[in-house]
Amino acid sequence: MQRALDVNRSRFADWYQAVVRDADMAETSPVRGAMVIKPWGYGVWEQIQQELDRRIKATGHENCYFPMFIPLSFIAKEAEHVEGFAKEMAVVTHHRLKNIDGKLQPDPDAKLEEPLVVRPTSETIIGDAFARWIKSHRDLPLLINQWANVVRWEMRPRLFLRTTEFLWQEGHTAHASEADAVEETKRMLEVYRAFAEDVLAMPVIAGEKPENERFPGAVNTYSIEAMMQDGKALQAGTSHFLGTHFAEAQNIRFQNDAAAMEFCNTTSWGVSTRLIGGVIMTHGDDDGLRLPPAIAPKQIVVVPMLRDKPEDAEVLKYCEVLVEALGKQQVFGQPLRAHLDTKKIKSAEKRWNWVRRGAPIIIEIGPRDAAAGQVTYMRRDMLRDGDKVKSIPAPRQDFLEKAVQLLTEIQAGLYLEAKARLDDNIKSGVTDWKGVEDYFAGSDDDSVDNFRGWLKLSWSKPMGAELEAVEAKLKGLKLTIRNAPLQQPENFAPCLFTGKPGVEEILIGRAY
Amino acid sequence: MQRALDVNRSRFADWYQAVVRDADMAETSPVRGAMVIKPWGYGVWEQIQQELDRRIKATGHENCYFPMFIPLSFIAKEAEHVEGFAKEMAVVTHHRLKNIDGKLQPDPDAKLEEPLVVRPTSETIIGDAFARWIKSHRDLPLLINQWANVVRWEMRPRLFLRTTEFLWQEGHTAHASEADAVEETKRMLEVYRAFAEDVLAMPVIAGEKPENERFPGAVNTYSIEAMMQDGKALQAGTSHFLGTHFAEAQNIRFQNDAAAMEFCNTTSWGVSTRLIGGVIMTHGDDDGLRLPPAIAPKQIVVVPMLRDKPEDAEVLKYCEVLVEALGKQQVFGQPLRAHLDTKKIKSAEKRWNWVRRGAPIIIEIGPRDAAAGQVTYMRRDMLRDGDKVKSIPAPRQDFLEKAVQLLTEIQAGLYLEAKARLDDNIKSGVTDWKGVEDYFAGSDDDSVDNFRGWLKLSWSKPMGAELEAVEAKLKGLKLTIRNAPLQQPENFAPCLFTGKPGVEEILIGRAY
Repeated sequence: MQRALDVNRSRFADWYQAVVRDADMAETSPVRGAMVIKPWGYGVWEQIQQELDRRIKATGHENCYFPMFIPLSFIAKEAEHVEGFAKEMAVVTHHRLKNIDGKLQPDPDAKLEEPLVVRPTSETIIGDAFARWIKSHRDLPLLINQWANVVRWEMRPRLFLRTTEFLWQEGHTAHASEADAVEETKRMLEVYRAFAEDVLAMPVIAGEKPENERFPGAVNTYSIEAMMQDGKALQAGTSHFLGTHFAEAQNIRFQNDAAAMEFCNTTSWGVSTRLIGGVIMTHGDDDGLRLPPAIAPKQIVVVPMLRDKPEDAEVLKYCEVLVEALGKQQVFGQPLRAHLDTKKIKSAEKRWNWVRRGAPIIIEIGPRDAAAGQVTYMRRDMLRDGDKVKSIPAPRQDFLEKAVQLLTEIQAGLYLEAKARLDDNIKSGVTDWKGVEDYFAGSDDDSVDNFRGWLKLSWSKPMGAELEAVEAKLKGLKLTIRNAPLQQPENFAPCLFTGKPGVEEILIGRAY
Repeated sequence: MQRALDVNRSRFADWYQAVVRDADMAETSPVRGAMVIKPWGYGVWEQIQQELDRRIKATGHENCYFPMFIPLSFIAKEAEHVEGFAKEMAVVTHHRLKNIDGKLQPDPDAKLEEPLVVRPTSETIIGDAFARWIKSHRDLPLLINQWANVVRWEMRPRLFLRTTEFLWQEGHTAHASEADAVEETKRMLEVYRAFAEDVLAMPVIAGEKPENERFPGAVNTYSIEAMMQDGKALQAGTSHFLGTHFAEAQNIRFQNDAAAMEFCNTTSWGVSTRLIGGVIMTHGDDDGLRLPPAIAPKQIVVVPMLRDKPEDAEVLKYCEVLVEALGKQQVFGQPLRAHLDTKKIKSAEKRWNWVRRGAPIIIEIGPRDAAAGQVTYMRRDMLRDGDKVKSIPAPRQDFLEKAVQLLTEIQAGLYLEAKARLDDNIKSGVTDWKGVEDYFAGSDDDSVDNFRGWLKLSWSKPMGAELEAVEAKLKGLKLTIRNAPLQQPENFAPCLFTGKPGVEEILIGRAY
């Protein structure tokens, strides 16, 4: 069978690269580890931004912008934070270049007194502003978000999943009480869960990270974890309760009702362009990307079948009227995004371009369609009937009437397909280490053909050295603890690792 | 008379700082030269982005995102570009910090082989991608834009006007012919002109920069210049025709119809957060900022006059219904942005906060308004009647019916006020240097009370050393050539500088 890609999901890592490339999503750049996000990939990010920004504002947050350079001394303030981030930062040491002996280089006379780091995250620089802005309990809660680029040096970069520079939003909030801050942390986790499932059609498990996987400086870290088609977990968003750690390091205090000074409780939470990698590995198939209509930059693409003949004009006119009529409809609370592809390339090439890019509905209009007042369309979520591409004819008016319903169906269908995969591949009932070894034995780490998902097992929530031992044991099978789902049973089996009474169920699996 | 600011426009520089601070627009940060953009300031930027992005897309451009780090060797490729930018860049030399002798510092083992600069502008890194993407004339025109942060080290920073890091959009395009590229350069200049005038209510003069003020590496640079209330010019946007300079330096070529390889002609164009500084200095008054409704994050603010009494509930309910009814209306093609201020501070404080921030309409609702079914509102563009604040009562229904018209009137009024100032303060008819000296003599450089605008004069468009002499002469009076307006007369007086026949009219003035 001829596919739109030259590699299929049985070589999952290669397939991923092929989709990113052939769907025009992104490419590597001359700067090691940094990517160029191309129009189609950036278009998806714009859709993500727009809808997530709406939800972040609807929960009372305001956008700001903070400097991307952070004085070195700020990073050094919170001890765990230093430990967790100091290893992978871009450091600015000079503010001028100079031509010395015919070679452009950093000007020794323009060496900074204090080096600056490019933000890997902004707790420290935003905390500095919070310390200035917050005076009284009346200033709380302070609910801030920013959309920004951040840098964490990557030795093994992968487009969207792990890049030296990436785009994200980071929320930062300060509260008068621990309870308020914990509530905020969980509220934003729920915003992420709902966004991932409703908008990205990407089912996730929301839960708490174990101690060893916490954000550097956090009291608790929560995550949403999505299952990719190779069974691996993708941490798709995190929400951190920071307690008073950063407030104490940065003197973020408020005067309470009783006129006494107290430290604030703070939170932070973020999602990034990594979500796009998650969408690709959740929904892609052997013909390329399949985009959930809610985030497709173009939801319905019309390809005119032109032959350099006089009747072309009529076909084009018919297509224009069709696209205009579609654009007047509303879907997912927004104007429907319909597009007429008038590029000067062959129409067969156009079809396959849009298949690879995952446009939800592709319409091909030839002279006969125009004459008969009909459309011939493909659903990207059900592209083929056996080996053949399934083209569906419909009277123009019928199609116009059901276009919104079709897009809604595609969105729901992609979610259900992914949800079934997630549900079918979380295995419970394993009670000993042998069972863990057996489950993951013989699985192919880089294929969808014989993949393993995650195990859900009971543990005693060990800490410190005991937890390190668990971590090391899991590492031997390339496994990590993903999270402890928010939804927990009432009773627990004994801990698989320590034999002590179980207190929590956790998910373990391989991860990106 | 009591004003909402503690300094007025007769000390213009201090007044500007006071407005930026008291309108909660931005503040300085611990990183020298970089600013924190606060929610109200960032909200204005979001409105600017949204509308300008729509116009950039409507003219066929697609958004992308390119790495912010640029290899040093890229900068060195285009000779003039090096000369123009090499002096003020942030240079990344290390990718890791290390704790050495108890002090966190750049890890000597993590020194980059080639330093990276933080983009001051992206011609070089985007050109590198263009060289990969463009193969044939069918790939042209290539029309790309990005929204990004950029860094140009500033020794004398001023919030919004000149900051080390700022936010902007930068368009980059490649074309098959010089004519196409020139047309694009002018098209985007016109997009900027229309945007500045229609959306920011900021009248501008569009024209061409003289040779000595061109973008480093450009063949022609065009600008829009706005007149601030102290008579100084603000360059508010630029559009550059780059010829084949960058294409030759970076090998951006295409195969033409005749199968021969040709260099592309390229353009670039940008506007930045500097526009916000322009809005402040165009529309602000002695009570603070006045925002054009099209970019006000909140267009109508409702302040409930609460007294901690039982009737508060009724007042609040009345306000909520009012805000909801306003929010259902459309103005400037968008839902009207109405806001109910429920902060727990005194209502008088709220009033003055919104006056300083420049909300176009402020409504105050007390128990009597609620009972009588009326509103009492202030127009920020006509806040006072003599010394007193002018509160206007209106039946609720009447106000609802004319709210959109009021906002439209305020937008138009602010434009006309600024347009009259611009038109009245461009002086023609000066034909000798003495006239120039006389015009600017005795003017106060930092006040609106006795300011001078610009002179429009005829010149012979000298080049090279002759132009340098003109530049030096102007510099003695702190003057620069702003641009040669696109609209030119048919006949010219002799050149004021050289005595040769005039070929062009130019504007000269003091500038930010």
